Amino acid sequence: MTCSRLNINTPPPYLTLTSNEKLPTVLSVAGTDSSGGAGAEADVKTITAHRCYAMTCITALTAQTPVKVYSINNTPKSVISQTLEANLRDMKCDVIKTGMLTTAAIEALHEKLLQLEGNRPKLVVDPVLVATSGTSLAGKDIAGLITEKIAPFADILTPNIPECFKLLGEERIINKLQDVFEIAKDLARITKCSNILVKGGHIPWSDENGKYITDVLYSGAEQKFIVFKGNFVNTTHTHGTGCTLASAIASNLARGYSLPQSVYGGIEYVQNAVAIGCDVTSETVKGNGPINHVYAVEIPLEKMLKDECFTASDIVLKKPVTSALGKIPGGSFYKYLINHPKVKPHWDSYVNHKFVEKVADGTLEPKKFQFFIEQDYLYLINYARISCIAGSKAPCLEDLEKELLVIECVRNGLTQHERRLREGFGIKDRDYLQKIQGGPALRAYCRYFSDVARRGNWQELVVALNPCLMGYVYALTKIKDKVTAAEGSLYREWCETYSSSWCNESKAEGERLMNHILETYPPEKLDTLVTIYADVCELETNFWTAALEYK
Amino acid sequence: MTCSRLNINTPPPYLTLTSNEKLPTVLSVAGTDSSGGAGAEADVKTITAHRCYAMTCITALTAQTPVKVYSINNTPKSVISQTLEANLRDMKCDVIKTGMLTTAAIEALHEKLLQLEGNRPKLVVDPVLVATSGTSLAGKDIAGLITEKIAPFADILTPNIPECFKLLGEERIINKLQDVFEIAKDLARITKCSNILVKGGHIPWSDENGKYITDVLYSGAEQKFIVFKGNFVNTTHTHGTGCTLASAIASNLARGYSLPQSVYGGIEYVQNAVAIGCDVTSETVKGNGPINHVYAVEIPLEKMLKDECFTASDIVLKKPVTSALGKIPGGSFYKYLINHPKVKPHWDSYVNHKFVEKVADGTLEPKKFQFFIEQDYLYLINYARISCIAGSKAPCLEDLEKELLVIECVRNGLTQHERRLREGFGIKDRDYLQKIQGGPALRAYCRYFSDVARRGNWQELVVALNPCLMGYVYALTKIKDKVTAAEGSLYREWCETYSSSWCNESKAEGERLMNHILETYPPEKLDTLVTIYADVCELETNFWTAALEYK
Repeated sequence: MTCSRLNINTPPPYLTLTSNEKLPTVLSVAGTDSSGGAGAEADVKTITAHRCYAMTCITALTAQTPVKVYSINNTPKSVISQTLEANLRDMKCDVIKTGMLTTAAIEALHEKLLQLEGNRPKLVVDPVLVATSGTSLAGKDIAGLITEKIAPFADILTPNIPECFKLLGEERIINKLQDVFEIAKDLARITKCSNILVKGGHIPWSDENGKYITDVLYSGAEQKFIVFKGNFVNTTHTHGTGCTLASAIASNLARGYSLPQSVYGGIEYVQNAVAIGCDVTSETVKGNGPINHVYAVEIPLEKMLKDECFTASDIVLKKPVTSALGKIPGGSFYKYLINHPKVKPHWDSYVNHKFVEKVADGTLEPKKFQFFIEQDYLYLINYARISCIAGSKAPCLEDLEKELLVIECVRNGLTQHERRLREGFGIKDRDYLQKIQGGPALRAYCRYFSDVARRGNWQELVVALNPCLMGYVYALTKIKDKVTAAEGSLYREWCETYSSSWCNESKAEGERLMNHILETYPPEKLDTLVTIYADVCELETNFWTAALEYK
Repeated sequence: MTCSRLNINTPPPYLTLTSNEKLPTVLSVAGTDSSGGAGAEADVKTITAHRCYAMTCITALTAQTPVKVYSINNTPKSVISQTLEANLRDMKCDVIKTGMLTTAAIEALHEKLLQLEGNRPKLVVDPVLVATSGTSLAGKDIAGLITEKIAPFADILTPNIPECFKLLGEERIINKLQDVFEIAKDLARITKCSNILVKGGHIPWSDENGKYITDVLYSGAEQKFIVFKGNFVNTTHTHGTGCTLASAIASNLARGYSLPQSVYGGIEYVQNAVAIGCDVTSETVKGNGPINHVYAVEIPLEKMLKDECFTASDIVLKKPVTSALGKIPGGSFYKYLINHPKVKPHWDSYVNHKFVEKVADGTLEPKKFQFFIEQDYLYLINYARISCIAGSKAPCLEDLEKELLVIECVRNGLTQHERRLREGFGIKDRDYLQKIQGGPALRAYCRYFSDVARRGNWQELVVALNPCLMGYVYALTKIKDKVTAAEGSLYREWCETYSSSWCNESKAEGERLMNHILETYPPEKLDTLVTIYADVCELETNFWTAALEYK
């Protein structure tokens, strides 16, 4: 008989700064979905993922999966009333969110809402009548009852298009956004709920960039429409989107955000959850799957085991990491990457960019070059920031110091840009530099860096930071002998900077660093590094394209 | 009628690296708790907070709050069977977790477990018989049925002490840990479940450091006990601890962690959730409140509004921040802090430390000084790391560069420590430096930094980094004229370093920086900065105390 003793760590310090946290609270009045993707389960998941406190009043138990609804067992009215009574008396309740309502639930809730009078929590009503898949979930009488007994109390109603038709009592043809506006206005009138969000997932539109969807928020009080334009994701993993959206809106409202903010947050949350999806159905099940409610949640135990004060090391087995470098043909990870089928097209369009050609032969319009230098100025400040984070994540002091050297080079690059703007474009004012606005290409690039910095490890961050150095030096060194821009011009000087022997030494150092990170990177995750390299090469291409197309 | 158009942002880049994420899945078979703190709701919350996918099979609907259970409505056996059938056929299921079971639920689950044979998911059984509050939740027959029909299939059983007694069929006196061991062994024999976690929340122990609790994991197969020692938190916010622990263990198991790791993670999660708690009950309700399941969850909309590619700025109203500096008497935030009642005791014990006195008069044992220098060496490396993060969070390039200067000073400090260790203690080997182990005081300090760096903003991080500089210079300058350690000794040189005019200039710069951060810090959150300053002064005190007491 053996016995080991382990100490449980104390809570992380930042948590102990607050105790008895005032969590915003949301009460979900809905039916269950036993498979967890929709219904009250989706509500609890969504509210939890929004750092709010979820309560429930279950209107019906359903045995269902994304495949089908196997059975529905309605909860008796007395139980619903009792539950509403208990929750609303003993607990704080900022927002009530309704999902699938039975006749009993509508009556119980209606009575409670009347009784609460001025103390009513906010109310978000998802008039569940037709599932995302198109299946009808309630009879016509439910639509009428919601209109009559629930909607007038609601702060917002969130029907999808088929539900709009049921609530309106008629089908309509929708050819243009204006048709949706009319539906929203009519619904506000009929339901006496002054905020209507008409969800457009069932009616994707098309333009030159492809399909997109619009959710339209109508505010009756302000006589205002807000059209939220989102990506159309071609997926069948949409089980639970309706419940999730309404719960996310309810959570955001509970936290004190405005209605338009709350709707924005809800839509982006659902779109992210749909875009990533999750694989949780049996092998045999095809088609509709649930969305991913937890895409942004971190894994607690992962953090606990890495905590500086974790002492229960008996329970941790250190897996030795074998370097993936042995698997890299030719022994250069950088060369492996730029020739990888996933990366090569992006690398090629990056290092053979028309922008560089036109700088080299001096034919680029000056205002485009100025735009480039200004955007690159902001880029470099961001690069310094992200290099700081790479330094903080580095495994040892030597690696940390390498990042500091990078920041020194970046500082030098900024000084050169300041000089270029001064000498080439007469900009002497430091205030001007502070006020440069980042364009979309820059912002997308910075966002990518931030995200890898936040969620990725040191190695992934080093990989993300690498294409900038390697590509500039590669591209400019390649055309070194073909530069025809005037001697002494900004263009020639810029070209010569990146083809200098000093920059080529930095590039060689960059290549060594890329091999170095493989020593501690799990070989089975190599594809992540490939994806990051490809993505960043594409972002670099877009950055030059933005300058080339600047008007 | 106005209309604005807003674009919904695309998902963050790192998410798009994976799609159709294979989320670990956990099926909760339990009764509901309408108020959300315990039962199936707590299970779904916990599983979600562990980035796993939750499914449910509801055994009973309860209208309850932390105040009392108002009603219980058992689910018919046929519905339970149908739900288990649907979930286990159409969905992947890694782990089943059971909570409150009725006779019907036990029978339905038993039949299903038999039928699944070799394809059974793992099974975590929380034998809910007695609530954390002491209330009996099931009759004696349920204990017998669980023992007979469910426990033999279980991978782990997690009874609290009263539940142990019910399962054993007798009450026992517990005076020592050995008594708990006997209970665990007997339970394993009786229930035929080879892993028993006896939860010790009901029987806190005491030692010279105060009260603590022990959870004992018995592994029958390995004939091994693991004792998890945790803090006893004096709180009544413990509603839902049992359900939460079992769900956390189930989630960790589903993710592939070993049983001891999963139990560790579960216990720390619950302890954190209890320690922070949440204020969600009505004003009128005193006593038992729920734990905080979402303590580590970030708020999605907060991130979305700060996203580099967020363009829907119509929905954001920028609140102007008024500097809190005007509220600081005397105009020095640093002086305000060190005289603040929350900070002063810690500042005083820090800057009047016996360790410094004994260095100054040359009476400190050399091995204690060596220990200090070695720990400080590791501390400075960490300080450089954290300064990198502060740099990355700085609002502008100038502030970022200030952090780089700090890192340069830190590098200088490291070089001096290397020299001290070489000259004073004959340590010439660089490998020696790599192998220094951090002691508890250092680790606690580094952990504090990491946590503020991860969750805090730039201002909070600057405040956390400040006491180190200010206190050293303050303490050593104060006794500058009383240093009697031998001329040319390490001790004297160390004292003189921090009382130098150069260091005093850095201190003045530090004081200016402390005022500077107030310009952009919301005045209403000032107390957070005070708490951080107090905490860090205490960590500094402990750091010197550790050296003074080193043997």
